[in-house]
Amino acid sequence: MNIKITGSGCYIPTEIVTNKDFTKHIFLNDDGSPFPLPNEVITEKFYDITGIEERRYVSDELQTSDIATIAAKRAIEDSKIDSETLDYIIFAHNFGDVKKHAIQGDMLPSLASKVKHNLRIKNPKCVAYDMLFGCPGWVEGVIQATAFIKAGMAKKCLVIGAETLSRVVDPHDRDSMIYSDGAGATIIEATSDEGGILAHESATFAFDEAHYLFFGGSFNKENNQDIRYIKMYGRKIYEFALSNVPKAMKECLENSGIDISQLKKILIHQANEKMDEAIVQRFYKLYDQKMPEGIMPMSIHKLGNSSVATVPTLYDMLVRGELENQSIQKGDIILFASVGAGMNVNAIVYKM
Amino acid sequence: MNIKITGSGCYIPTEIVTNKDFTKHIFLNDDGSPFPLPNEVITEKFYDITGIEERRYVSDELQTSDIATIAAKRAIEDSKIDSETLDYIIFAHNFGDVKKHAIQGDMLPSLASKVKHNLRIKNPKCVAYDMLFGCPGWVEGVIQATAFIKAGMAKKCLVIGAETLSRVVDPHDRDSMIYSDGAGATIIEATSDEGGILAHESATFAFDEAHYLFFGGSFNKENNQDIRYIKMYGRKIYEFALSNVPKAMKECLENSGIDISQLKKILIHQANEKMDEAIVQRFYKLYDQKMPEGIMPMSIHKLGNSSVATVPTLYDMLVRGELENQSIQKGDIILFASVGAGMNVNAIVYKM
Repeated sequence: MNIKITGSGCYIPTEIVTNKDFTKHIFLNDDGSPFPLPNEVITEKFYDITGIEERRYVSDELQTSDIATIAAKRAIEDSKIDSETLDYIIFAHNFGDVKKHAIQGDMLPSLASKVKHNLRIKNPKCVAYDMLFGCPGWVEGVIQATAFIKAGMAKKCLVIGAETLSRVVDPHDRDSMIYSDGAGATIIEATSDEGGILAHESATFAFDEAHYLFFGGSFNKENNQDIRYIKMYGRKIYEFALSNVPKAMKECLENSGIDISQLKKILIHQANEKMDEAIVQRFYKLYDQKMPEGIMPMSIHKLGNSSVATVPTLYDMLVRGELENQSIQKGDIILFASVGAGMNVNAIVYKM
Repeated sequence: MNIKITGSGCYIPTEIVTNKDFTKHIFLNDDGSPFPLPNEVITEKFYDITGIEERRYVSDELQTSDIATIAAKRAIEDSKIDSETLDYIIFAHNFGDVKKHAIQGDMLPSLASKVKHNLRIKNPKCVAYDMLFGCPGWVEGVIQATAFIKAGMAKKCLVIGAETLSRVVDPHDRDSMIYSDGAGATIIEATSDEGGILAHESATFAFDEAHYLFFGGSFNKENNQDIRYIKMYGRKIYEFALSNVPKAMKECLENSGIDISQLKKILIHQANEKMDEAIVQRFYKLYDQKMPEGIMPMSIHKLGNSSVATVPTLYDMLVRGELENQSIQKGDIILFASVGAGMNVNAIVYKM
């Protein structure tokens, strides 16, 4: 028995927000002091580091579970399964449904339950739960689906990663430019088909690192500090990711028994273009090799960092041939990798 | 290989809130109209139905992850394992950390990461994630731990259920009297010891039932309706639970191969005494039997409904001999059962 992705879908939100749209913002330092550069310079520097030109936000009436439902429908359709045969709906997110202009996240019922309701699935044996694991949540959801299948508790799982970070950003924080909204979904199935998940790795670094990403008050100290937003120590995360992600990728590849020369694509969490490049370069350096041209498909330039949604969205676009100069064939080996709040790191070696 | 609970711990919050403390509240109907009975009558009726005399709230400075840490420490100590050998920390909750007087839930980083940080666990291979599954979250966490162990991905898991419902209740809603705070934790281990988890069942009913428990505005319509609280359709939940929980319990017992006469205790989610009794009576009726005296240990009278925390707290109190006229021996068979938001139902047959 092998475990494969038999269908995928994503939802690209409709509202395009360019870097220029941020030039009206009043950016502040974390202590509330004014930022000593004009916004045009800030956004230019931002672009140089992150590679982000634009990001997508959902329209005002939509919430995370709504766009997740759309992505899930597409994945189910793509896999051609009967949705009543699903054993699990695993929904990775970190903030719940956040209505426009409302600051509370809503997770009652779980977003997985809401999606199951929206999909009109009747079968009560399809177990729906939410899972919080920072940005690596979708990759971890696939690993959990793998566990259920290996344990004989499931044959077919729907794994969703969806988030609307636009609803939890502090407009006075330059990091708000990184974040975006999105949803990706996949069907994970037990199959007699060749290939599938060959190895996986997961880790949580919480001793010193637990609060590198956190929920914190606005940089504008005149705002109510009990209203909190996604916040991060970018420099610490960068250093953390560079020390730990390449090692996890290597460990995963070694466990899979696949030689690095066979690796066709690395689908890495779209956090920041420079960081992602540095991670993959360092990964190849562990093998005394140079990073091959075109190994790392990217969507960050136009889509930003949509947390749990980046990897399944990238996968869906890749298999559909929607990424420029990128393609994938049956039998090709992919390495999925992610890093984010927790701090969590994970990786999967997958044969198409 | 068997899978057993090798340690448990709980935290009973320190603030005692009696039914009399609610007589100062202004209770309203869901449409905002005044409730046509004096509060003394309301609280008396409430007591007759739910069996709740008192409930416990955490002191002002504590949050869900704090009390979870205390319960987790006790469970680790009880199991005598080295915390560095844990493969998973699975944390079931539904609202995150909610500070006193702040309405946002904080789940960044995940509460599992915060607990791992608080426990000073270094091993990055100990994977920490949060799981949202309504009140049955702790039981479901144990089932997920079982999957990881069966799949060869884990040997030792810490499974926590903790919640501070006192921070998400609408004071104008009579249902606010039901809810309380609490934390329970257990160590789930692969072992060569006899017994352990013999069978488990899980289900999500979302077609019509997804919104029986939901996040909604205050019954006081003058309050900001964007500030939302735990809300429920009590009558619908009662009918749902009575039709579906006894069936799930029976299915689980049948899968375990255990005869109903061998059942020593039923540890059911402490939702409401009358409902719990009706569920267990109906379960025995499915076997044409009467509910045996003392089969259902209860903690609801003094502890209220602390969501995910009730079942692990009840288990911990039972094994420690802290429940009046209740005891348990090695070799005894227990049935765990829970029901809650989702709507989710689950059960485990367990041999001590």
